[in-house]
Amino acid sequence: MAGQKLTDQSITAAVLERLADSPNPRLKQVMESLVSHLHQFARDVHLTTEEWSLAIDFLTAAGHITDDKRQEFILLSDTLGLSALVDLMEHRDAGARATESSLLGPFYRLSAPEVQLGADISNGTPGEPLEVRGAVRSAEGGAICDALLDVWQAAPNGLYDVQDKSQSGMNLRARLRSDARGHFAFRTVKPASYPVPDDGPVGKMLRGLGRHPFRPAHIHFIVSAPGFHILTTALYINGDRYLETDAVFGSRPSLVVDCRRESNGAQSIDFDFVLARATRRALRIRTQSADG
Amino acid sequence: MAGQKLTDQSITAAVLERLADSPNPRLKQVMESLVSHLHQFARDVHLTTEEWSLAIDFLTAAGHITDDKRQEFILLSDTLGLSALVDLMEHRDAGARATESSLLGPFYRLSAPEVQLGADISNGTPGEPLEVRGAVRSAEGGAICDALLDVWQAAPNGLYDVQDKSQSGMNLRARLRSDARGHFAFRTVKPASYPVPDDGPVGKMLRGLGRHPFRPAHIHFIVSAPGFHILTTALYINGDRYLETDAVFGSRPSLVVDCRRESNGAQSIDFDFVLARATRRALRIRTQSADG
Repeated sequence: MAGQKLTDQSITAAVLERLADSPNPRLKQVMESLVSHLHQFARDVHLTTEEWSLAIDFLTAAGHITDDKRQEFILLSDTLGLSALVDLMEHRDAGARATESSLLGPFYRLSAPEVQLGADISNGTPGEPLEVRGAVRSAEGGAICDALLDVWQAAPNGLYDVQDKSQSGMNLRARLRSDARGHFAFRTVKPASYPVPDDGPVGKMLRGLGRHPFRPAHIHFIVSAPGFHILTTALYINGDRYLETDAVFGSRPSLVVDCRRESNGAQSIDFDFVLARATRRALRIRTQSADG
Repeated sequence: MAGQKLTDQSITAAVLERLADSPNPRLKQVMESLVSHLHQFARDVHLTTEEWSLAIDFLTAAGHITDDKRQEFILLSDTLGLSALVDLMEHRDAGARATESSLLGPFYRLSAPEVQLGADISNGTPGEPLEVRGAVRSAEGGAICDALLDVWQAAPNGLYDVQDKSQSGMNLRARLRSDARGHFAFRTVKPASYPVPDDGPVGKMLRGLGRHPFRPAHIHFIVSAPGFHILTTALYINGDRYLETDAVFGSRPSLVVDCRRESNGAQSIDFDFVLARATRRALRIRTQSADG
């Protein structure tokens, strides 16, 4: 570099050259693409020093507001549609017949209580009673028994247990297993649409862009069974006003479910989760790598 | 979205559409380009959920190690050449005859002590004595008197005052003003090459990429005078082994200076800073905006 003048064009090649000796081919590939796109972005918009400085402040504030109960970087990725894109690519790999995936989001917690089929997971949380039931099956149609369903949702006040001191620990979270016919069922309260946490830098960004922070009402699921690809998804309740403008691009037409009124006044949702075989996906990824 | 199926291609248009109502045209422009490049990057490398998750962890760790004395996001931007690119674009705008700019870096501090011309700013720091002198002038050649030079550097042990308990507050930092002929001079100790802080996520990234963390020896300057564009730059000492592979892409051929041996055994550097008139730059930027 002492001998060669750098310009706002040649700097990119100079950085890429510095990645030439990376011992990790995949990291090298990812970083080459990241550097190229990051530089092209800065050139495209002619990013100024002042704007760059605002971006540094933004990332710093996101880092400082992030703790074990708040994840501003996931929220940033979600609101920019990056999380949805990664999900959509993964789903494409898993095969078109499987249930579509949807965002994990920042509120998943490990080790939710294990409950029996039919259990009420609402712990007396005020709200409209709702029964959720269905089956877990393979893309070929066979029942998958003993599949693990890890379930979580916000209360009707729009808050998850970790955001809300009025909810007891692990409220509206459960793990349950499908029965011999692949069936599952649990009782809960009907979730409502809610804003993502918007008191931090991401909220400021959304306001700057004239965007609302709301997610349509939904219930999260991670469904897994040996030999099948793990499905991270969510069910979205039909009629919600934010279905078409989910702030984090998580809702999908195939995951929108009707809430039916039962004769006893309670409401119910029916949905079958379809899992893709893990081997098939692994094969497809291996083929892609060989192609690329 | 409830009516339209999203794919890993159409998701980008869906996000861009959501920016349509931004009340801030510049923020809209920047975010449209950022989202487009971020998505194209993820598609190019077929980013997996696991890799996405590692990126979230990386940013979180960068946020948590950042405080008032450590700025991991600036370090990340520096090591990816983004800071240098923004600098190079800004310099191009300032005009080719002005002194090239170089990185601000994460160690600048406001309110360094004001000193007289010729002062020793080393406060007894062990090292080889060095005198730095020169002039501040305009691109047309005229002396700029009363220009403010804000100077800072690492000690010969490779550490800045904020990183090193053995240095007193504001060590090797000063503000001084050019005299009536535009001349300036101060005494210090010769800096050495040093590694950027590499005990955090950026250090881990550099190791993963097989890159060293060193910067060539340098002295930072911010030179300013009314009516001129503020110049943020640094002088790099000739002969340094890291001049060609500066970990943060800051060194420039035009900023490499010889350290000359004086008859009394001390060493000296001579350099003239050339400032661009602010009006000219403003004009050029206005023209660019009109063109673009």
